Amino acid sequence: MAERVVLAYSGGLDTSVCIGWIAEETGAEVIAVAVDVGQGGEDLDAIRQRALDCGAVEAEVADARQEFADEYCLPAIKANALYQGQYPLVSALSRPVIVKHLVAAAQKHGASTVAHGCTGKGNDQVRFEVGINSLAPGLKCIAPVRDYAMTRDKAIAFAEAKNLPIVTTKKNPYSIDQNVFGRAVETGFLEDIWNAPIEDVYEYTQNPADPREADEVVISFEAGVPVAIDGRKVTVLQAIEELNKRAGAQGIGRLDMVEDRLVGIKSREIYEAPGAIALITAHQALENVTVERELARYKRQVEQRWAELVYDGLWFSPLKRALDGFVNEANQSVSGDIRMVLHGGRAVVNGRASQKSLYDFNLATYDTGDTFDQSLSKGFIEIFGMSSKIAAKRDLQG
Amino acid sequence: MAERVVLAYSGGLDTSVCIGWIAEETGAEVIAVAVDVGQGGEDLDAIRQRALDCGAVEAEVADARQEFADEYCLPAIKANALYQGQYPLVSALSRPVIVKHLVAAAQKHGASTVAHGCTGKGNDQVRFEVGINSLAPGLKCIAPVRDYAMTRDKAIAFAEAKNLPIVTTKKNPYSIDQNVFGRAVETGFLEDIWNAPIEDVYEYTQNPADPREADEVVISFEAGVPVAIDGRKVTVLQAIEELNKRAGAQGIGRLDMVEDRLVGIKSREIYEAPGAIALITAHQALENVTVERELARYKRQVEQRWAELVYDGLWFSPLKRALDGFVNEANQSVSGDIRMVLHGGRAVVNGRASQKSLYDFNLATYDTGDTFDQSLSKGFIEIFGMSSKIAAKRDLQG
Amino acid sequence: MAERVVLAYSGGLDTSVCIGWIAEETGAEVIAVAVDVGQGGEDLDAIRQRALDCGAVEAEVADARQEFADEYCLPAIKANALYQGQYPLVSALSRPVIVKHLVAAAQKHGASTVAHGCTGKGNDQVRFEVGINSLAPGLKCIAPVRDYAMTRDKAIAFAEAKNLPIVTTKKNPYSIDQNVFGRAVETGFLEDIWNAPIEDVYEYTQNPADPREADEVVISFEAGVPVAIDGRKVTVLQAIEELNKRAGAQGIGRLDMVEDRLVGIKSREIYEAPGAIALITAHQALENVTVERELARYKRQVEQRWAELVYDGLWFSPLKRALDGFVNEANQSVSGDIRMVLHGGRAVVNGRASQKSLYDFNLATYDTGDTFDQSLSKGFIEIFGMSSKIAAKRDLQG
Amino acid sequence: MAERVVLAYSGGLDTSVCIGWIAEETGAEVIAVAVDVGQGGEDLDAIRQRALDCGAVEAEVADARQEFADEYCLPAIKANALYQGQYPLVSALSRPVIVKHLVAAAQKHGASTVAHGCTGKGNDQVRFEVGINSLAPGLKCIAPVRDYAMTRDKAIAFAEAKNLPIVTTKKNPYSIDQNVFGRAVETGFLEDIWNAPIEDVYEYTQNPADPREADEVVISFEAGVPVAIDGRKVTVLQAIEELNKRAGAQGIGRLDMVEDRLVGIKSREIYEAPGAIALITAHQALENVTVERELARYKRQVEQRWAELVYDGLWFSPLKRALDGFVNEANQSVSGDIRMVLHGGRAVVNGRASQKSLYDFNLATYDTGDTFDQSLSKGFIEIFGMSSKIAAKRDLQG
Repeated sequence: MAERVVLAYSGGLDTSVCIGWIAEETGAEVIAVAVDVGQGGEDLDAIRQRALDCGAVEAEVADARQEFADEYCLPAIKANALYQGQYPLVSALSRPVIVKHLVAAAQKHGASTVAHGCTGKGNDQVRFEVGINSLAPGLKCIAPVRDYAMTRDKAIAFAEAKNLPIVTTKKNPYSIDQNVFGRAVETGFLEDIWNAPIEDVYEYTQNPADPREADEVVISFEAGVPVAIDGRKVTVLQAIEELNKRAGAQGIGRLDMVEDRLVGIKSREIYEAPGAIALITAHQALENVTVERELARYKRQVEQRWAELVYDGLWFSPLKRALDGFVNEANQSVSGDIRMVLHGGRAVVNGRASQKSLYDFNLATYDTGDTFDQSLSKGFIEIFGMSSKIAAKRDLQG
Repeated sequence: MAERVVLAYSGGLDTSVCIGWIAEETGAEVIAVAVDVGQGGEDLDAIRQRALDCGAVEAEVADARQEFADEYCLPAIKANALYQGQYPLVSALSRPVIVKHLVAAAQKHGASTVAHGCTGKGNDQVRFEVGINSLAPGLKCIAPVRDYAMTRDKAIAFAEAKNLPIVTTKKNPYSIDQNVFGRAVETGFLEDIWNAPIEDVYEYTQNPADPREADEVVISFEAGVPVAIDGRKVTVLQAIEELNKRAGAQGIGRLDMVEDRLVGIKSREIYEAPGAIALITAHQALENVTVERELARYKRQVEQRWAELVYDGLWFSPLKRALDGFVNEANQSVSGDIRMVLHGGRAVVNGRASQKSLYDFNLATYDTGDTFDQSLSKGFIEIFGMSSKIAAKRDLQG
Repeated sequence: MAERVVLAYSGGLDTSVCIGWIAEETGAEVIAVAVDVGQGGEDLDAIRQRALDCGAVEAEVADARQEFADEYCLPAIKANALYQGQYPLVSALSRPVIVKHLVAAAQKHGASTVAHGCTGKGNDQVRFEVGINSLAPGLKCIAPVRDYAMTRDKAIAFAEAKNLPIVTTKKNPYSIDQNVFGRAVETGFLEDIWNAPIEDVYEYTQNPADPREADEVVISFEAGVPVAIDGRKVTVLQAIEELNKRAGAQGIGRLDMVEDRLVGIKSREIYEAPGAIALITAHQALENVTVERELARYKRQVEQRWAELVYDGLWFSPLKRALDGFVNEANQSVSGDIRMVLHGGRAVVNGRASQKSLYDFNLATYDTGDTFDQSLSKGFIEIFGMSSKIAAKRDLQG
Repeated sequence: MAERVVLAYSGGLDTSVCIGWIAEETGAEVIAVAVDVGQGGEDLDAIRQRALDCGAVEAEVADARQEFADEYCLPAIKANALYQGQYPLVSALSRPVIVKHLVAAAQKHGASTVAHGCTGKGNDQVRFEVGINSLAPGLKCIAPVRDYAMTRDKAIAFAEAKNLPIVTTKKNPYSIDQNVFGRAVETGFLEDIWNAPIEDVYEYTQNPADPREADEVVISFEAGVPVAIDGRKVTVLQAIEELNKRAGAQGIGRLDMVEDRLVGIKSREIYEAPGAIALITAHQALENVTVERELARYKRQVEQRWAELVYDGLWFSPLKRALDGFVNEANQSVSGDIRMVLHGGRAVVNGRASQKSLYDFNLATYDTGDTFDQSLSKGFIEIFGMSSKIAAKRDLQG
């Protein structure tokens, strides 16, 4: 029986060519697996048929949007996950859910190998391969672009030679990865980091400078989970999708950053993530009201490590699981409503309401009803500052 | 010879009344010290005269704006200091410079005590007293509002009874603290955290929703210090002031947050800090280009602790000094230019240029000239993911 | 109906006097509550009777040893909790379990106040009062020694005047707190930190310098819990007690340290914790074998914060709960056997065996059977070091 | 002109064979460089001559012991650097100083490549190559054992065939790396992690179980630097050497651990580091007396990261430099004397004296002279615990 290779299939030129290329390089049968994480574009049946037309012995398609939102985007929202304080991990979050489907297909079809279309200088190769190794340590991984020198030009030549049913136009200037949580764009002219992006690179967001009416939204959370928008119950997927539209229409969630890749280089990236940014902004604001100070301070560090781990492809790692133990416990009381104005590229929180609020009007107010006993402060200050004061006394002596 | 008390004097009703109040409570002579940290308003001579007219035996005024910018705001910029990820420590930064002048005056005039006008439920009392204790462990601290129950109503009555040369209008609805690095506003109706702020509370910033032309600015840094704007050399003070105007005109730097006070309560705060936010945004973007990944990741944690320490009033503490040792070393290569568009409430970086850049076009590009050896990745991925893979193998065995 | 005060009662002079003293100061009825956390000494019935003889309207005694071991000591073992890297939190762990019983008694008997015998300059007052406030925010706390100036001399005079059934010898030179997890000693001559402790201060441990036979022990853990010693099943309490004896007989677990108190001062403390140190040493060694590297590295930081929080009296805080979420997840695979030699003050691990081991002989060995593919290293090293190398290239250019 | 390769030369079989092996594989001229970091054994002249006899075109030897102690061991002492809380980085510290000499020789002799004798599964290959890349990004690195499959058997055959002046006995069962800071041993029978080490593996330390007299020592530090022993001035090198002897004679500094290697596997390691452990123990104890609490707490985290970085071969990295900025500042006041008893495998601190002490007898004592104002505690406790209390109130409501 022939060796079998499961290929992460997108329907595009590169992975369509991969089907035949892998077969030629390895002699194996190729099984194409396409996973819908909300990237849009063609329907799954068309993609499935193209895989078969390109020579796949089997082709599987899966609508993983709900699963992606519930099991991958939601933990990121709970962790306020922003790599380098900015990037909501759009691509990094989608890799593990794709990996899960690839591994399941490999096990179902008895494949020994999983193939993906990544290059050898990005983060995604790491995310795919470390993920696959973690779910099925016995599977091999190959990346034709990296391992078999399958360049763009050779891929086009291959497609034309084999008469593959795929358009082989000149290279699109944009290299794009998109899903329900956002969109990543790389392109040649932005590799000069002094160049500014142009409107043409954006698709999920309108120009924030265009005049338009503001949009006010109320997002409700229960234990860190967005459960309603403007009072209408929503799934996590619906929350992201609705806010992608509404925040995107206001130009919210554009990012232009120089980013530290896991492979040791810095790269210029443009992202759009209107729904992700709106939801994380609201979630953070609700945490400010419902999470106790010391927990909030520590959680910021956990969030940073969580984002680094997921960025670095370690979704299925023991540390990730333990950090989730922390994050889930910390979200127990993150319940309530956040009112936010979406406008001109900004998602501005201006109202919070929560049954779980730790904000106590009577302690905070300077008006009548103040219950804070100010006489306590003298002792607090003296003892709070004592170790510093003793050190100061020592240091002043020379 | 009479005991002497140095009073942190603002020229306003409360501290003007404090002069006589302290004298009556303690029998001490009061020396008023006013420190200009860019709060605007009256000129220092007028303030000085008023202190004397209110009964101070001496009155000193100091223009500390340059010192404040160079020695307090600049370290905050280098540390990208944002408490709770948002608040650029406006008031928290000004307290230690004021403390320094109060202590100097106390030593010059042989005072045994320093007095300040803070209440007993805020952070500033801690910042004043822990700071004073650290610079002069022998000085006593008093706060008439907290310690002698000097309420607003009593202060007005006292001023009128003594015929003090100060306006005793009804309470301004806004409680304001402002300096060159920003402005803080508290007010009764915002103590209901569901209420949105109104335009009336803002002074440093225009409404970001108003239509206007965008403003493009290039900020140059050397070793983390802003040294030029649009090619013109500036001091740190000038940089903050110019960006207060230009970013403020674009509605940048407004904050509306529920904040964790050191005294254990949550409070609603409105801030405006256009210059601070513009400078920190630019500084962060330049760090993304010039700071190595592991240093950048660790620095984020140091920044958080730095901001917490300064917020908590521990400016003059041993840990703050050691963190500065880290932060200064980390800023050695943070030199170059950041181009930023100021518009509609957003300060958006869209260009970076640096002699110290770690961004390597030849490693990053996907075009001709790519020097990244992709064959290295296979080994990297395998070993990078090995500990996770071994754990996965174990865990899959159940 | 009279106010009621629940008193944390030890049976000793101070708290026996507190019964009447509180009654006189407050007019309240006093309910004595004694909690056995393994401190040894008199039996609980005798203590109960003495409380009644001293004037308590009710007296309750509880054997909380099992609960203390399972719910307080065990989490500390899982967290390898050592304050300042040394102190296994002996007293700090016992306070929350005592607090739990005090609060339960207060609620049962309708008391408005809880009293304890701590002074005003130690950690225990904080642990009691913050704990009580966290379990029952409405209860008041009083500490007669601190709040009613009940000095030792006055206590003796009171006992003699009232003819209380308690020995009022001169002050014991040692101030001792002990429980099943260890023993803390303070004493006047050790307040000079140049003085060495003498053998007389120790009770749980023999002199490690005395010649004796070594004792070899095998401790078995399941998911971080000690479950067997030398193959015999044990409860956590039994594990601690047996190792207190065996490790104590070998002089293990003595500590002499200058410690940072929460109230801002440094103090000299002597501890003995033979069982705690033996168990934590074994647990750490088993973690080295069963916990993945990145999780292990992060857990060290979590352990430090956990120990600080518990030391600082924040057992019942939200952050503590969230850290436990992390720690419990991290202990899932900490199962296996540790062989340890107890001798001469040292607990030395020299063997480990685990079904959950991540140590892979075939990867680690340099002999035949080596399965580590060394050709992967070149790529790993190059990419692992790349960000540092790029920075070096920049820095060498000056 | 021929290519030149600088070889890290030890004088032993493997690197002696490397000289000819590299020449044959690459056609290059080989320059042998031996660096004395206190490993003992033959004198440098004999080693130099052997390199030339084995075919090196040049041979350089350097006594780097002083440099190693001052610039590599000392920062580790200041950082209390213990990887996984135990291992004082013996080998990890020596690699960068050797790298420095290799790179200097390569630059002096115009070599294009540096070679070392490491295998492909350890940490040292990473430390050598990342270090070399950081000091001279243009140099290539080769490791004949890893890259040219130079196994032990082949090396012996080569030595015999070429008649090299080197003993080619059967494999020593121990693989040893030693220097002035300690000694590392690996050996086949300890690859079974259930096996205990035997006395035979140790050389720097006597059996701690042997009866002998205790040795009391006073170590004096200035700003974190050990400057005197028992009142005699010493260099850092002398301090380490003397304590190696005295602590080694008492069986101090033996470690038996399962360690997380950078290459992703766990390995069993035996170390001896009597001087290092004695010095770090003393340094920590002096920090407990002289470093303010919050700085001490933060420094523990910095220490952990410092040790990980150095273990991972990132000595010459930007983060290492910035952490040193912190560590050096934190050591400013670490001056004073530590008295320590060395006996039976234990280095026990029992006395501290310091002009820079933060221990204040008058604040700490419970006897006459107590200056701690206990009335301050009530306010401190209330406000310190307030955020936790407010959260408790919320959580109790369900």
